[in-house]
Amino acid sequence: MEFDTIAAISTPSGEGAIAIVRLSGPEAIGIADRIFRAPSGKSLASQATHTIHYGHLNDPWTEEIVEEVMVSFMKGPKTFTREDVIEINCHGGIVSVNRVLSLVLRAGARLAEPGEFTKRAFLNGRIDLSQAEAVMDLIRAKTDRAMDVALNQMEGRLSKLIGTLRQALLESIAQMEVNIDYPEYDDVEEMTRPIMLEKAQWVRAEIDKLLQTSSQGKILREGLSTVIVGRPNVGKSSLLNSLVQENKAIVTEIAGTTRDIIEEYVNVRGVPLRLVDTAGIRETEDIVERIGVERSRKVLKEADLILYVLNYSEALTPEDVLLFEAVKGMDYIVVINKTDLPQKIDLAEVQKLAGDKQLITTSLIEEEGIDQLEEAIAKLFFEGSIESGDMTYVSNARHISLLHQAHTTISDAIEAAQMDVPVDMIQIDVTRTWELLGEIVGDTADDGLLNQLFSQFCLGK
Amino acid sequence: MEFDTIAAISTPSGEGAIAIVRLSGPEAIGIADRIFRAPSGKSLASQATHTIHYGHLNDPWTEEIVEEVMVSFMKGPKTFTREDVIEINCHGGIVSVNRVLSLVLRAGARLAEPGEFTKRAFLNGRIDLSQAEAVMDLIRAKTDRAMDVALNQMEGRLSKLIGTLRQALLESIAQMEVNIDYPEYDDVEEMTRPIMLEKAQWVRAEIDKLLQTSSQGKILREGLSTVIVGRPNVGKSSLLNSLVQENKAIVTEIAGTTRDIIEEYVNVRGVPLRLVDTAGIRETEDIVERIGVERSRKVLKEADLILYVLNYSEALTPEDVLLFEAVKGMDYIVVINKTDLPQKIDLAEVQKLAGDKQLITTSLIEEEGIDQLEEAIAKLFFEGSIESGDMTYVSNARHISLLHQAHTTISDAIEAAQMDVPVDMIQIDVTRTWELLGEIVGDTADDGLLNQLFSQFCLGK
Repeated sequence: MEFDTIAAISTPSGEGAIAIVRLSGPEAIGIADRIFRAPSGKSLASQATHTIHYGHLNDPWTEEIVEEVMVSFMKGPKTFTREDVIEINCHGGIVSVNRVLSLVLRAGARLAEPGEFTKRAFLNGRIDLSQAEAVMDLIRAKTDRAMDVALNQMEGRLSKLIGTLRQALLESIAQMEVNIDYPEYDDVEEMTRPIMLEKAQWVRAEIDKLLQTSSQGKILREGLSTVIVGRPNVGKSSLLNSLVQENKAIVTEIAGTTRDIIEEYVNVRGVPLRLVDTAGIRETEDIVERIGVERSRKVLKEADLILYVLNYSEALTPEDVLLFEAVKGMDYIVVINKTDLPQKIDLAEVQKLAGDKQLITTSLIEEEGIDQLEEAIAKLFFEGSIESGDMTYVSNARHISLLHQAHTTISDAIEAAQMDVPVDMIQIDVTRTWELLGEIVGDTADDGLLNQLFSQFCLGK
Repeated sequence: MEFDTIAAISTPSGEGAIAIVRLSGPEAIGIADRIFRAPSGKSLASQATHTIHYGHLNDPWTEEIVEEVMVSFMKGPKTFTREDVIEINCHGGIVSVNRVLSLVLRAGARLAEPGEFTKRAFLNGRIDLSQAEAVMDLIRAKTDRAMDVALNQMEGRLSKLIGTLRQALLESIAQMEVNIDYPEYDDVEEMTRPIMLEKAQWVRAEIDKLLQTSSQGKILREGLSTVIVGRPNVGKSSLLNSLVQENKAIVTEIAGTTRDIIEEYVNVRGVPLRLVDTAGIRETEDIVERIGVERSRKVLKEADLILYVLNYSEALTPEDVLLFEAVKGMDYIVVINKTDLPQKIDLAEVQKLAGDKQLITTSLIEEEGIDQLEEAIAKLFFEGSIESGDMTYVSNARHISLLHQAHTTISDAIEAAQMDVPVDMIQIDVTRTWELLGEIVGDTADDGLLNQLFSQFCLGK
């Protein structure tokens, strides 16, 4: 495919040591040579591919110096987009990088749309759609494990599995094709159904396995939406602070990361907790009161995890009992805080209300019990299964939805095959399954979907 | 000089397409080879310098994949630090880049201090101190012109001029040395004073020229501290919004820049206005009332520019007259707003109070007069002189202070030479001048100064 030449700032915005303006397309080298001046006077076009060159960017109309830069020169197809790629490393200031971008645009490049580099990598066949999506997941990953899942997917692990499933379906379809073309041969018919059935059942089993990973995958990718509830003054904001302080360090122990971005995500033993309404808790210490009973119920309903805080040194109140009602049927952990004070709560009564949910006693003020709480959270959601590390995870909502649909169509096919439905009818379901799986890797994806997907990318990727 | 190997994240923090982890030092290549796996299996050490390599970073203890990367390999001394440099381009996510940095540190690098790469470039003699400082100025530049000044300085324009001045002083010192060593020769004595005097006067004139640029240079570098004053409801927040909306575009017209960072700086025809207490204006529309008379006077005193807003459709009030008293002797422009309403203000009276200060009438609601105001601001501070573009600007407070001191010592020397002070006394002042100028380029700077200067740099530079 032939495209125009695009350019964008590929580093996060803000002040830093280095920023990158990236170009990709047939004119990338020509545009760069129009503005790049090496001390040797040599053009980039005359250089070997995958080399780095020091020099200046000059305004080609005035020959005034615009920036001092290092230019990376990479000829296609061994590049991210498979096109010619130029990366201009300039000083990481806002004026500097915008000035370089602006020069590159004046010299003939077009400003890239979000995700357009990755889109080209996809359209030029270097990666499939699930790999392209993994690129963005990788950038947005909030924990090491989330990044591992994205990395696996980017390396093509999911693509390979989907490919194997589609191959099996294709063989099945071919077999049915023979059957339809030669309906007079009974032995073909006889062969077709058991073969088709066996393959379809295997495909469904594999889809089942994938879907089993999806809830964990989704949590890894999007974070576990977590709400802290409890009456005022039981220690909700202390709990929030403990979780943030204990765990922020995992991501921010190395200087240079922005606190704001991480703050709402807390990495608890590899489980990314997305703390909902933390501002509310910090401000008022009372989420229920602040956002109103109606809305707070909604927040509760949408949560993946509820941390329900009780006061160790007070007897249970009617409100506490009501809150137990509100969280019924949801994933929650009871945190009984203030064990540094004399016990007044009846733990047996609490356990009775909590049923099989876990009770953790803490003294946040004395920094006790947080470890146990974190372990309980990790155990509740991962039961050690993520430790295996070797699984193919599905984490993307689009993929999960397609897998569910594929599960339905292949189940229909299996059911039909087990009854006496004509083969060409069954073939429709199998073909649909093949198509649905194809949408995951982008083999059967349409332009609208592509545009929508890539528009969610960050600029310069 | 021999150093250890340092590493840091060199791109701004946040989510972006690409992030860079940079290594510099004798072990840079060794450390990179410990963790980098190219598809070809080749080591970086076996590659040509200034080349780019695709591959993966693996944890060397487990061989698990940590990231997919592009590695730039640059052997010293043709590098930023003159040492071996490795730049690892990874995905621009927070987890990703921290993970890569952490791996590099575990593999043997030390986390760099702020500015340590540039410090090495200085200590290894690639750039002098004023050039090193320009690197940071360049990154922090808020306007094109500020960047040009920094770029000029980084390219060594100031260094070269300082070098010429110091050379002249050195020749003068040598001449005086001869005089001191051979006091018996009267003709040497006769020659010494006029030569010394001529050189010293030339040096002082050049220092004068440099200092003349300093107020503009400082504004370009640090922004023009601007305060908007006036009674409530004259249109202060409208003026603020007009300035921001009209001009923000200059820096942010290209997507991908962060609004927050720019917001407080408004680029008015190359003049960076640093709008003081904008939050206060937006909230209360009355800076004086909000921060108290005492403090507001302090804010006024520290301002480089005051925009004093009056209401065109109201007669002058006693408060207005008091405000004229308060801004007396300062740089201000009177903005008479609301010309869309019937005139009630006596313009002649205003002009009398304002003396030679400029009056600009605006109707901010109808977007009239803003152009004229901006032109007045640019003219007030740059009188067209910045247009020449070819001047050497001094913008750094440290440089300005050293130039002032050098000006004093060379003036002392000139005065002494004109009187009958012994040559060896004069020599002390000339030598001190030579030293003071040397501090600008770092030739005579001590460790304490260096540590203090570089600690203000951003990480990874």
